[in-house]
Amino acid sequence: MDNFRIGFLLFPNLTQLDLTGPAQVLSRMPGAVVDYVGQDLAPVMSDCRLALVPTRTLADADRYDMIVVPGGYGVPAVMADRHMLGWLRDQAETAKLVTSVCNGSLILAAAGLLKGYRAGCHWAWGQELARFGATFVAERTVVDRNRITAGGVTSGIDFAFRVIEQLHGRDVAETIQLTLEYDPVPLGGGTPATARPEILASLRANLAPRMAEPLAAIRAVPPFGE
Amino acid sequence: MDNFRIGFLLFPNLTQLDLTGPAQVLSRMPGAVVDYVGQDLAPVMSDCRLALVPTRTLADADRYDMIVVPGGYGVPAVMADRHMLGWLRDQAETAKLVTSVCNGSLILAAAGLLKGYRAGCHWAWGQELARFGATFVAERTVVDRNRITAGGVTSGIDFAFRVIEQLHGRDVAETIQLTLEYDPVPLGGGTPATARPEILASLRANLAPRMAEPLAAIRAVPPFGE
Repeated sequence: MDNFRIGFLLFPNLTQLDLTGPAQVLSRMPGAVVDYVGQDLAPVMSDCRLALVPTRTLADADRYDMIVVPGGYGVPAVMADRHMLGWLRDQAETAKLVTSVCNGSLILAAAGLLKGYRAGCHWAWGQELARFGATFVAERTVVDRNRITAGGVTSGIDFAFRVIEQLHGRDVAETIQLTLEYDPVPLGGGTPATARPEILASLRANLAPRMAEPLAAIRAVPPFGE
Repeated sequence: MDNFRIGFLLFPNLTQLDLTGPAQVLSRMPGAVVDYVGQDLAPVMSDCRLALVPTRTLADADRYDMIVVPGGYGVPAVMADRHMLGWLRDQAETAKLVTSVCNGSLILAAAGLLKGYRAGCHWAWGQELARFGATFVAERTVVDRNRITAGGVTSGIDFAFRVIEQLHGRDVAETIQLTLEYDPVPLGGGTPATARPEILASLRANLAPRMAEPLAAIRAVPPFGE
């Protein structure tokens, strides 16, 4: 079987599960060869006090069949990083799949890679996509041509199984689900549409001050090419 | 709010999501202070080519309110590591919760910490618990006194929400589910009981040669105290 090279982007203050969820699932895909690409080879700190070690740098990275961009509070800094955005645009020219998890879609958007595309995002950040010419869709996995973008955090696991189903069919995807015992039992209320109104209102109020600065930074990013 | 100190055990060839899933969820628990405890501070390689960086060594670890032991193909080596088992027994004397994900329960069992307890495990490994005096229960989260043990891999996410619900109540658990957009959409068939028979049979046949050596190693581990 031919190798299918997958490059995950690493950057400081990423939301750890945005990357590790799909990394676990996609690593089990037949032929998958996975890299974690950082600015340099120094461990990258995530939001969980857990530092992740790159296998490649931007400068010596492979050319990937699939790139995966996670999200997190570190997203605004990457959206302002012309070097990282340039790397993504360059990879996207030849990648078969250009993908993201959570508000990682804002990074793809800032690189000009979602203009005219439907895209997923964490529900609290999705409205920022419009300014970059993308249309936010509140689903766990949004497929538009070769852009496959997930919703918030845990969506990355469903997104990864969807990619495997698309590339290898249902039997392979179900086999990997069985290997990873993927039979989730959520409490319910995991989306704004299904959450109890008082839980959603309280969370929105708590997030607002924490999101003010990153939102201002995101709104200061020029849409690519302007 | 008082701190609630959580220590995750790191060891080579752990299944990455066993640790990173609950780490993401439990990091958001009010008061949580999370450590990743390794033999030393060198990055520890997981099954996904992703190396994780310890924050503490066994020797300079804190005393934890909760210890979490992940699973993976690296489990048999830890079951034979008297130093690591001794550390777990010592921590378990004062920990409020002694927990594991996937076949990490075999490590707790080898340390003598599950004798007379009901326990979860990855479905392919659960039958090995009996020799250590534990009773395998095929559920995503198994609670028996202060031992809380999860099923395979992705069960660790449900396990973590269950712990938060137990410690902080339903509203806090649902709020963190909403933050992490936990509204999974599995394909179905993620357990032996629900999988299509041909998928299960094929997977068992594929796993058998890979599991032969680790199973032999596990069966060579003396039950603690003998």
